[in-house]
Amino acid sequence: MDQDHAEQRVERTHDPSRVLALSDGVCAIIITLLVIEIHAPVLGRGETLWEAMRELKPSLTAFRISFVVVAIAWASHRDLFALIRRTDRGLVWLNILYLFPLCLIPFGASLISNHLKDPVALRIYGLLLVTIALTRLGIWAYATGRPRLLFVPTDRRSRRLGMAVPACTGAIYAFAFAIAGAFPTASLLIYVSVPVLYFAAITLARNVGPTGSAERDFT
Amino acid sequence: MDQDHAEQRVERTHDPSRVLALSDGVCAIIITLLVIEIHAPVLGRGETLWEAMRELKPSLTAFRISFVVVAIAWASHRDLFALIRRTDRGLVWLNILYLFPLCLIPFGASLISNHLKDPVALRIYGLLLVTIALTRLGIWAYATGRPRLLFVPTDRRSRRLGMAVPACTGAIYAFAFAIAGAFPTASLLIYVSVPVLYFAAITLARNVGPTGSAERDFT
Amino acid sequence: MDQDHAEQRVERTHDPSRVLALSDGVCAIIITLLVIEIHAPVLGRGETLWEAMRELKPSLTAFRISFVVVAIAWASHRDLFALIRRTDRGLVWLNILYLFPLCLIPFGASLISNHLKDPVALRIYGLLLVTIALTRLGIWAYATGRPRLLFVPTDRRSRRLGMAVPACTGAIYAFAFAIAGAFPTASLLIYVSVPVLYFAAITLARNVGPTGSAERDFT
Amino acid sequence: MDQDHAEQRVERTHDPSRVLALSDGVCAIIITLLVIEIHAPVLGRGETLWEAMRELKPSLTAFRISFVVVAIAWASHRDLFALIRRTDRGLVWLNILYLFPLCLIPFGASLISNHLKDPVALRIYGLLLVTIALTRLGIWAYATGRPRLLFVPTDRRSRRLGMAVPACTGAIYAFAFAIAGAFPTASLLIYVSVPVLYFAAITLARNVGPTGSAERDFT
Repeated sequence: MDQDHAEQRVERTHDPSRVLALSDGVCAIIITLLVIEIHAPVLGRGETLWEAMRELKPSLTAFRISFVVVAIAWASHRDLFALIRRTDRGLVWLNILYLFPLCLIPFGASLISNHLKDPVALRIYGLLLVTIALTRLGIWAYATGRPRLLFVPTDRRSRRLGMAVPACTGAIYAFAFAIAGAFPTASLLIYVSVPVLYFAAITLARNVGPTGSAERDFT
Repeated sequence: MDQDHAEQRVERTHDPSRVLALSDGVCAIIITLLVIEIHAPVLGRGETLWEAMRELKPSLTAFRISFVVVAIAWASHRDLFALIRRTDRGLVWLNILYLFPLCLIPFGASLISNHLKDPVALRIYGLLLVTIALTRLGIWAYATGRPRLLFVPTDRRSRRLGMAVPACTGAIYAFAFAIAGAFPTASLLIYVSVPVLYFAAITLARNVGPTGSAERDFT
Repeated sequence: MDQDHAEQRVERTHDPSRVLALSDGVCAIIITLLVIEIHAPVLGRGETLWEAMRELKPSLTAFRISFVVVAIAWASHRDLFALIRRTDRGLVWLNILYLFPLCLIPFGASLISNHLKDPVALRIYGLLLVTIALTRLGIWAYATGRPRLLFVPTDRRSRRLGMAVPACTGAIYAFAFAIAGAFPTASLLIYVSVPVLYFAAITLARNVGPTGSAERDFT
Repeated sequence: MDQDHAEQRVERTHDPSRVLALSDGVCAIIITLLVIEIHAPVLGRGETLWEAMRELKPSLTAFRISFVVVAIAWASHRDLFALIRRTDRGLVWLNILYLFPLCLIPFGASLISNHLKDPVALRIYGLLLVTIALTRLGIWAYATGRPRLLFVPTDRRSRRLGMAVPACTGAIYAFAFAIAGAFPTASLLIYVSVPVLYFAAITLARNVGPTGSAERDFT
């Protein structure tokens, strides 16, 4: 009995469930908080609501981009933690580091809502996206390199592929960051369209992965 | 042991629990965020709080409608996922698609609060309601058509009934959307009263369903 | 196997876990949203921050009262659902009805913050408290009257005691509501002090309850 | 069977899971709400967004400090509850007491954002930090002193160490509180750097702890 309880305690210490609860909570709150930045327009003299709705276009663009960014962040977090059986101190803090730029996304969205094509707003938003990609890369590398944290050790190929996806997205976002000064519209278009690239990449990874490999189950 | 862990990993990859955690979180946040749109009134000169409360009527109407809309969305999400044993990639993304219009409901509520009978506000709100109904229809069709995702395969009759409910609500909301320009008050009345229709429809579905069918347990 | 899955589905349909997830989420959000109403003061000319903090007193009072109200609502919700093994349609909707006045508490708190001793603000807040007490009474009566929903049937004495606690708190809040016009300060004092009464009542109920009865475990 | 259900009820009454759900929810919401205080700047005449971003520095400082404070509060809450098998009434209410100053952190952050080096803002923030440390100390002392609540009784040494960590952080925050009037910058620096001290302390505790002791698993 005592032996049993001691084991239960150790299990609980390394149980990922509360890490998941915190992360699910944070993602759920961010995608719902984003809407707070879209204010019902106050009508000017003689203005109709339909005309006033046009002013909301930047807010809606920022909402759409950010919603997809957070949804992808959540889905790939879920993919990763489906592999993880136990956590350790490093993983807990890396996960909190991952949540840090995510929590700033509503601020980035609000910058874009108010200053749609201002290079500074685009750069700050891009910086957040690069940081999310890098921390995701970090967690993936950390966890897949520690087989005792996993249900099944990942083979080398899967490990590299899992690192290649955030590395590529991160590189594209870094490019968009770099060109924001000279070509703000192109930069914004990249933010809008990277999700498309992400889905393409994941679909490719799923299809080339051997049966039973982790990447076959990427969401 | 290793075999065991490999199976646990596969189970975890298809486990719906985090999908439910995200969806429950989003619904909980939306019904509580709605209240942020109801501001304590600032009193004009010589105005009493009781008089000023009248200005809050549109906000309270928007709150009531939206609270019921989200509650129904949550209850029918719970009904659907009670049938689902495993998720796959399509279901995860369809569920995120379902959350998208839900997350915009506080914005729709804020439009109605500020422009109660403006056809544009009513149309945007109606559009959200139609989208919620359509994505719900989509998830239901997707999941019940894939028996390996379910605890028990649903029979054809239950499947159709489960698709008929969101299809009907969607059609009524689309009608309210269409008449918002000519009859804004009628349109608003439909938004207020569709929950009544929804409960009637569910009660009917429960009563005509054969013993043991899915629709007997609709909430 | 199929028999097994059919049973699992029925279990899942009546499983209270998502009802708890929604309710925990709503309570967590309300106690954290309350703080949004406490704004950092903007200093007038020559005013120090210390002087300006005094203006926050009503906001802090509203925060304190509301925090305790929601905490008690959560703790007694947890007490009740510790008895409940299965949900049904009625319980799901009664629970949503219980969340309705809870979700309006931040609005009530904001009214009190801005119009501390205005009878209208006090009455609306009191109305919310009465509604919370009544819906809690309703859920308790509904669930304890349906033994198939419970782990163990509650005896008649426990059932009545569990109904007496919200009935009494509700009556005291109704009294505070009634006198808000003539004695606003007394009304406010009751809102501040009922938690004290609640703890006294629960402590009494715990002590008079026979060993093994539900009320021995009231929080 | 009845015996079984009676046991299940008792287990459920003392089950910590909903206490964890509430606490995880509160922490997730606080770290995401913090961002609401960082407003997209409104540009003055001829001002660029880059120049205007400088005004956000206090807000970002407050965000960073508060994010880390809440993350540590969550991680140490997780450490503590990994030891706890059952809750009782005292633990439930002590936990709610712990959430109280946490819920006020966004208000403290907003004070610092708007009045960065004002001693009153620094003192209120310091007071919140001291209260968090004290309530953490209280929960640790309460739980580890009641072996029936734990998986494994903690030995005397672990118990003292677990109390020493919040006691030290609390003392340092109290010092920062005391010097806020004379040396506001030093006070702010302490708030920024205590996390560093916290990690150092935890790392030390992990390393000096005998194999199998609770402190070896501190996060």
